[in-house]
Amino acid sequence: MPLGEFDLIERYFSRAGGRRDVLLGVGDDAALLELPPGRVLVAAVDTLVEGRHFLPDAPPRSVGHQALAVNLSDLAAMGADPAWALLSLSLPESDPAWLQSFADGLYSLAERHGVALVGGDTVRGPRVVTVTALGSVEPASALRRDGARPGDVLFVSGWPGEAGAGLEALRSATAQGGADPLVSRYRYAEPRVGLGRALRGLASAAMDVSDGLLGDLQKLCRASGVAARLDLERLPVSAELARRHAPADCERLVLFGGDDYELLFTVPAEHAAALPSAVAGALPVHRIGVIEAGTGVRCERGGRVEDLRGGGYDHFA
Amino acid sequence: MPLGEFDLIERYFSRAGGRRDVLLGVGDDAALLELPPGRVLVAAVDTLVEGRHFLPDAPPRSVGHQALAVNLSDLAAMGADPAWALLSLSLPESDPAWLQSFADGLYSLAERHGVALVGGDTVRGPRVVTVTALGSVEPASALRRDGARPGDVLFVSGWPGEAGAGLEALRSATAQGGADPLVSRYRYAEPRVGLGRALRGLASAAMDVSDGLLGDLQKLCRASGVAARLDLERLPVSAELARRHAPADCERLVLFGGDDYELLFTVPAEHAAALPSAVAGALPVHRIGVIEAGTGVRCERGGRVEDLRGGGYDHFA
Repeated sequence: MPLGEFDLIERYFSRAGGRRDVLLGVGDDAALLELPPGRVLVAAVDTLVEGRHFLPDAPPRSVGHQALAVNLSDLAAMGADPAWALLSLSLPESDPAWLQSFADGLYSLAERHGVALVGGDTVRGPRVVTVTALGSVEPASALRRDGARPGDVLFVSGWPGEAGAGLEALRSATAQGGADPLVSRYRYAEPRVGLGRALRGLASAAMDVSDGLLGDLQKLCRASGVAARLDLERLPVSAELARRHAPADCERLVLFGGDDYELLFTVPAEHAAALPSAVAGALPVHRIGVIEAGTGVRCERGGRVEDLRGGGYDHFA
Repeated sequence: MPLGEFDLIERYFSRAGGRRDVLLGVGDDAALLELPPGRVLVAAVDTLVEGRHFLPDAPPRSVGHQALAVNLSDLAAMGADPAWALLSLSLPESDPAWLQSFADGLYSLAERHGVALVGGDTVRGPRVVTVTALGSVEPASALRRDGARPGDVLFVSGWPGEAGAGLEALRSATAQGGADPLVSRYRYAEPRVGLGRALRGLASAAMDVSDGLLGDLQKLCRASGVAARLDLERLPVSAELARRHAPADCERLVLFGGDDYELLFTVPAEHAAALPSAVAGALPVHRIGVIEAGTGVRCERGGRVEDLRGGGYDHFA
């Protein structure tokens, strides 16, 4: 039996978030939300389209996870504390099993990060999911893209390339069953919220890797008005990636794969040596290059420049 | 020549908003926004799907207008001051003429209300537009749905039904050329932001009419735990509506038409007489009934109860 729109919202998307700063949540014309004193609002929106950002046969739980994760990743890249989310859901029909699983994926991630779903819109249409994530940060400690300076050291967190490898495995039907760790990394990548927090006051610039490390590094350089030298031999390759792919393939995936939600960030040289231990609780971080005066990104291997074509994944290119 | 996603955002959606409270707008991972002290954040999201919320041949300017207007209407219904918006745009192709016109419609409304577009996402997919509107209000003066009490007087603003009539005219090809005032009302309805502000401290409950006056009144009653008596003879019918439709048709459009962004609100009896003059600068308001103890909405004509079937427009019903 098809559910009415209003029943649907009530049944699947009105779990109490348990946040005292939600004065009014789902159910009125708009939500009323209390920002901590001394902080500014941090707001990001991202959209997932079926067939483009998730496969038509993707587990709905993973779609719910990804729709929120891609936004929490944006907040993490600002060093923000996530607080609230709004969901817009366009669906061809109200399939209770799909909705239950989607909601479970979304709430599971939301609860892990203390995020309350405070509003939304449900419409009939093609399967398109838009989440707006809201959080807060002290304005002086927000991590921006435009703060990198010559001499800063360039880092990337965790294991970029794994999610891209997982997506390729799904597309080429070489995935190793439902428990393939690379597929899990693609479907359930964790936004680096804790690392973003730990980088406040340490990083001079940060962004999340969403369109591939190399293309996103170019954007960071452009925003900061600087150049970067990237040491290809220092790119982190996870054990699982190395086990499944030849070295050249690993490098391609690390440089051009997206969807891992790793953070790309720069740190003034005087803090760089101590950085891995300063953020040790959060995640391993890898020193992969330096910031220089000029423009563009220069890739080096063993001290020699290499020309790598390609950039970020551009939806309209 | 197709534009890349990043050029596209830069070209059409990065007009400066001129708000000093935007510490960081379009171009980083997230926006940084400063809320006025003593105020809470008001947040709403709404989605328009081509073929459902706007016709495939709708002027793109009107789509840009509507995408923001439906959200500003939600803020108006809370008595909020709108401040910022985020745009998520899914499009099958990047058509410069469509984008320019869409952006003009959106910015024209945004500028009229001092709203800055501070972020967004552009993806390839079916034509779906989601806007998140953010604003602020002093928490004690926010207009909610749940504050109506027995004895309160029920009002509606302006001229509900005109937008619904405009949509029907378009669908039945009876529209009177491009300058049909009912079609303009449908395409370019004005959110009642000024009236929402004027109702702070006066109205006990408010919501915007988006799914039809009768269905939305039922929702307001449910949220407040009250009943309403609606006087059908007091429903406002605009001169244009009366000129083009028979009386019974006018009543149907006023009761069941949406998209006008009129405000439905209740006022304690002691303020009701003075209300029209108190909000005179904003918009005409019409006294259409009273709130009573109980549940549901009772429609009366000349003191006799009438049974009107139907409710709000439910996308999944």
